[in-house]
Amino acid sequence: MSTRKALTASDGADLAGNKANLNVDYVISYSIPSDKAEAEAGFTQLIEALTKVGLATEVRHGDDSSVLVFVKVASNDYLASQIYRERVQDWLVAVRASAPDKDINKALENEPVTEAERLRLVYLLITKPKNDGGAGITPKSGKWKQVTSIFPLHDDAFNKSWIKEWSTKYVLDNGDLDRIRDKFGESVAFYFAFMQSYFAFQIFPAALGFGAWFILGRYSWLYSIVNSLWSVIFFEWWRKKEVDLAVQWGVRNVSRIQHPRAQFQWEYEAPDPVTGEPVRHYPPTKRLRTQALQIPFAIGCVLVLGALYVFCFGVEIFLTQVYDGPFKSYLVLLTTILTKFAETLTERENYKTNDGHQAALITKIFIINFITSYTPLFLSAFVYMPFGNLMIPYLQIFTTTAKTFSSEEAIKTQEFRINPDRLKNQMVYFAVTAQLVNVGLEFVIPYLKRVVLGKVQEKRANQDTKAAQDLPEEHEFLQRVREEAKLNVYDVAIDYREMVVQFGYLSLFSPIWPLTPVAFLVNNWVELRSDAIKIAMTSQRPIPWRSDSIGPWLNALGFLSWTGSIVSSAIVFLFRGESEGPGGDPSNVNVVGLLLTLLFSEFLYLGTQSVVRYALAQVDSPGLQKERVERYSVRKQLLEETLGPDAMKEAAPPTLESGEKITLAALKREATKLSEGANSTPEQMFWLRQPSMDYTIKIGKELISRAKSEKK
Amino acid sequence: MSTRKALTASDGADLAGNKANLNVDYVISYSIPSDKAEAEAGFTQLIEALTKVGLATEVRHGDDSSVLVFVKVASNDYLASQIYRERVQDWLVAVRASAPDKDINKALENEPVTEAERLRLVYLLITKPKNDGGAGITPKSGKWKQVTSIFPLHDDAFNKSWIKEWSTKYVLDNGDLDRIRDKFGESVAFYFAFMQSYFAFQIFPAALGFGAWFILGRYSWLYSIVNSLWSVIFFEWWRKKEVDLAVQWGVRNVSRIQHPRAQFQWEYEAPDPVTGEPVRHYPPTKRLRTQALQIPFAIGCVLVLGALYVFCFGVEIFLTQVYDGPFKSYLVLLTTILTKFAETLTERENYKTNDGHQAALITKIFIINFITSYTPLFLSAFVYMPFGNLMIPYLQIFTTTAKTFSSEEAIKTQEFRINPDRLKNQMVYFAVTAQLVNVGLEFVIPYLKRVVLGKVQEKRANQDTKAAQDLPEEHEFLQRVREEAKLNVYDVAIDYREMVVQFGYLSLFSPIWPLTPVAFLVNNWVELRSDAIKIAMTSQRPIPWRSDSIGPWLNALGFLSWTGSIVSSAIVFLFRGESEGPGGDPSNVNVVGLLLTLLFSEFLYLGTQSVVRYALAQVDSPGLQKERVERYSVRKQLLEETLGPDAMKEAAPPTLESGEKITLAALKREATKLSEGANSTPEQMFWLRQPSMDYTIKIGKELISRAKSEKK
Repeated sequence: MSTRKALTASDGADLAGNKANLNVDYVISYSIPSDKAEAEAGFTQLIEALTKVGLATEVRHGDDSSVLVFVKVASNDYLASQIYRERVQDWLVAVRASAPDKDINKALENEPVTEAERLRLVYLLITKPKNDGGAGITPKSGKWKQVTSIFPLHDDAFNKSWIKEWSTKYVLDNGDLDRIRDKFGESVAFYFAFMQSYFAFQIFPAALGFGAWFILGRYSWLYSIVNSLWSVIFFEWWRKKEVDLAVQWGVRNVSRIQHPRAQFQWEYEAPDPVTGEPVRHYPPTKRLRTQALQIPFAIGCVLVLGALYVFCFGVEIFLTQVYDGPFKSYLVLLTTILTKFAETLTERENYKTNDGHQAALITKIFIINFITSYTPLFLSAFVYMPFGNLMIPYLQIFTTTAKTFSSEEAIKTQEFRINPDRLKNQMVYFAVTAQLVNVGLEFVIPYLKRVVLGKVQEKRANQDTKAAQDLPEEHEFLQRVREEAKLNVYDVAIDYREMVVQFGYLSLFSPIWPLTPVAFLVNNWVELRSDAIKIAMTSQRPIPWRSDSIGPWLNALGFLSWTGSIVSSAIVFLFRGESEGPGGDPSNVNVVGLLLTLLFSEFLYLGTQSVVRYALAQVDSPGLQKERVERYSVRKQLLEETLGPDAMKEAAPPTLESGEKITLAALKREATKLSEGANSTPEQMFWLRQPSMDYTIKIGKELISRAKSEKK
Repeated sequence: MSTRKALTASDGADLAGNKANLNVDYVISYSIPSDKAEAEAGFTQLIEALTKVGLATEVRHGDDSSVLVFVKVASNDYLASQIYRERVQDWLVAVRASAPDKDINKALENEPVTEAERLRLVYLLITKPKNDGGAGITPKSGKWKQVTSIFPLHDDAFNKSWIKEWSTKYVLDNGDLDRIRDKFGESVAFYFAFMQSYFAFQIFPAALGFGAWFILGRYSWLYSIVNSLWSVIFFEWWRKKEVDLAVQWGVRNVSRIQHPRAQFQWEYEAPDPVTGEPVRHYPPTKRLRTQALQIPFAIGCVLVLGALYVFCFGVEIFLTQVYDGPFKSYLVLLTTILTKFAETLTERENYKTNDGHQAALITKIFIINFITSYTPLFLSAFVYMPFGNLMIPYLQIFTTTAKTFSSEEAIKTQEFRINPDRLKNQMVYFAVTAQLVNVGLEFVIPYLKRVVLGKVQEKRANQDTKAAQDLPEEHEFLQRVREEAKLNVYDVAIDYREMVVQFGYLSLFSPIWPLTPVAFLVNNWVELRSDAIKIAMTSQRPIPWRSDSIGPWLNALGFLSWTGSIVSSAIVFLFRGESEGPGGDPSNVNVVGLLLTLLFSEFLYLGTQSVVRYALAQVDSPGLQKERVERYSVRKQLLEETLGPDAMKEAAPPTLESGEKITLAALKREATKLSEGANSTPEQMFWLRQPSMDYTIKIGKELISRAKSEKK
């Protein structure tokens, strides 16, 4: 099956699923509880619920303690009607400009169903609440806690050709993104579109950084200013671009259609002001009260994480070496605890929709990430370098504490000396080492694990009783499904987070080491491909959600771009010229100069932003233009249908005679009315005094010549 | 005629105009050129052009050197078709959510024609280019330079009741604004809506300012911060409110429909991407090149005006008195020259539409106004007070110069001493004296002039030959029209400018004298009424243009609100506590503290702005909701028309049986196909192994118990 063909389900006679996957739409992994009666009752309920919404089921062995339920939509007509209904709904809430064709078959023919569309609807059919016409199955929660996962099967042929293609080409084009979109939905496609744009934009700072490194050295004003400018342009450009992409993919405003969160707790019902249907509500003031807890949460994060960082940092500089003792792991632990806390807090905020919940969670995660990612550099740049020498007396505490905690015996008190390269070394660590480690953790290890474990298991499985029970013709397929069932769920937020944090390093700290963008450029080329491999090989196939932007990450990018303009200019001011910067003594810092720099960079940032925004607003984007054209033609067509084809054609400019005729006819009517004995009103009389054009002209000429003669 | 009734033309049998005005829609004042043949030819052309577009004309005496042409739409059907066509056009470009009724008469019945709508269309009929179906009459320019003005007649009954009502009530409600809108169009209504909102919002800083004046004294931190906060909230609130108003008035997006500028010079034609019609273009790069001249223009304004101000200021403080010599008039002259220059520059930028032209001009005018309004206070606060003592040696020049220019002999060199009250005195001048003078110039004087001159002229006119030629029954009416012809044209931009400049004083400098907002509050109560009187009595009735916002003034407000946060905090920092501030000696200024204050206030401003924006975005606005409801119901109706009433009704949740039936039927079909000898594919075989729900459950139970037993 060629890649192209695999993209649309329209290659078959109808809406059939993927043949290589035996037309399976979803696999549901049902874990067998210890109580047999409970196990059987739960299983029966599951199958009944699925059948009730028109899904055909088959059951097979899973691993030792689970069975796998295979699900497909039994009737294509039923699926078609679901798809059609969704398209109509899209049009009702203005996601689409034009209504789908009145005839269902024609509508599906005009716009073939993509795999993403099909899979999304089947997933909704499985998970939507019962009163919305779904089976109401919510994995891992409540009544359905035995349902451990619901996942679609990978399209191996597509995945292989995808990975092969991307690993041999440098630039992704729109076709590539469209294919991702048709296969994995707009949510994943947006991530790749963002990555590709970010990558392309990074070529400029990479070239600039290389030049700066070669010619200007570290802490260059020129590099810093141009880099800030670049981050503003990139941010504003992407803001526009994502709207454009959403229009091109037909998902603009799709964020308005939000899927209800199963965990939402409502307090009262009220009719929706738009549709008039009853909608469940939770008092917004109550939610606001919980949301207000975010402020102590953020302060708490800063204090707790900050304190631990300062402590680690103290130990570290005291030992004048990179410290890797127990505190680092405390940091990881603490971050995990705070993340859990963020999740609980978001849960308590009780959002009505999945999107709202997700956005609120991401904001909190971003705060934690901001602190953990940038604090070490902040401390080095703004505490260690300016105040290092003042801290010596206080370092004794760290010696004692470090000795208590560390297993090493060989801790020796060394003479304290500012390490001028510390900042650069840290930056190199974040830009190179950490990225490499990350690629390793994220991609190489899971990949190797899969390959090695897969082989081992396969051997074992072949002698297994389970596998022995498989029908021979199904064996290979079932083994593949069992493997996929074990894979991680892909979460696009993790990939966004990584890139947003990287953008922060670039925007805030890259003047420290101008090769940073070069390192990131290389990393991102690999990242783009390794993310593809992650989706295709080391994760379950993602549910193809729709989305119309990169969501809350956009705000995070904007915030980092703003912070970057300030932090990077402060760093350049402190360290410019001499690479030692203040050299540990705060009296070396020109405070007035520093503050003026901050103020100036702030104004420059705001000024640049409004200029860039204005300039970009002048450029018409193809997507928005397309939308306007579509909307206009839809309305025009409608107009012609109801008013006839000439409704909008401006009548030919009237001729003198036709105009005169209108006037005469109207006046004649009034005159007739008068002569018929109607009372003459003053306004009728006024307009009948010069009843034709020629008459007005004649009188006018008289008035003119009289005015002339009087003047003389 | 009651006020209510006067609002819609639907009180008569049809679309008739105002009876008190003898149904006259517009009066065209034609000034008689010196050459008689030219005069007659021009007049003939005018009448012919008007007749051609279906307008009836009557001609009467004007003043000594002009005739007045009275114009009305001859045929109501013709007008109705014009109105209907515009409404359809509105719908095509998404100004309206719903298309007008298919039947013209019904459409006009559902939404009666307002006077503003009628007058706007008639005006367009007179002025639109010929190829757009208009008469192409462009007053005062080109071929039509003898046409000195085209104006509608005041509705005296309405005006009187309007002024009477407003002068006796404190708060304007939506009804008041709607009446303005129906009479004078959305453009004027937006001004009054803005004024009313601004006035209402000002009550808070006025109370605060009064309190601060009473308790905290001048230069209070609390007052300054709360005042900045207020300006942010007001700005963000209005940004939202104006969208809401536009929706309620049915003019949202109306700025997209732009009327072509007659003076526009095109270079090439290209089809419009949306409508496909040919559109004339001027290369944007060329325009950009001209627009770039704005930068030297702005710098030039600052330098030239600044230099003159510094000079005046030098003279003024040297004489330690308010100087009112010739330089002040040079300043006025210079401002006039710069304004003319701004006009020329905007002309050269060659905008395609009137709105574009207007917006570009307003931006330039705003720059000039910003400099002329705030420079005196800037100089006092940031030059005189901190550096006063350093300037003494340089003051000798001013003595000499002042002596040369001034006619007064009595200039004496006085000992220089910083006047600590200078700043406050200036502020009091701008907040009280200048506002009073302004009301006088703008309103009292024209009013008196009109009353007095009117009386005199009336007497003279009664003995006049002109008036003697009037028909007795028309005499009074014609005298009124002749008076209106002499009135000024109302320009809403002047009123906006005044308010925006006032907002700037409040935002930038009000901590100097906390009673400023109280003074402005009183002034604005009067201003609202005096503007009404200005429109009703001392100006020609404005052409009722539509608009969907306060346009470029919004950006000006935002800019002032931002500048205010910085300038006011700097002033409070410099002068807090001691009312003398730095007392003329820069060494008294704590520079680090000042810079930190600026930086902090900047962050506070940006933080507040994003919080306020976020909070306001959470609140649903009635207008936008109305729009969504309308759009939804239109689409729903359309849907029902094409797909039947049940198209969107979610089918009742399927029952277990109906779901099972779907599954069984589909599987049976496949089974039949197989039994008929079709080749069995693996995917068909897979799904036929457990052909019914019960079968799946049975097999599942077996698998479960097997798993259990194996575990044991």
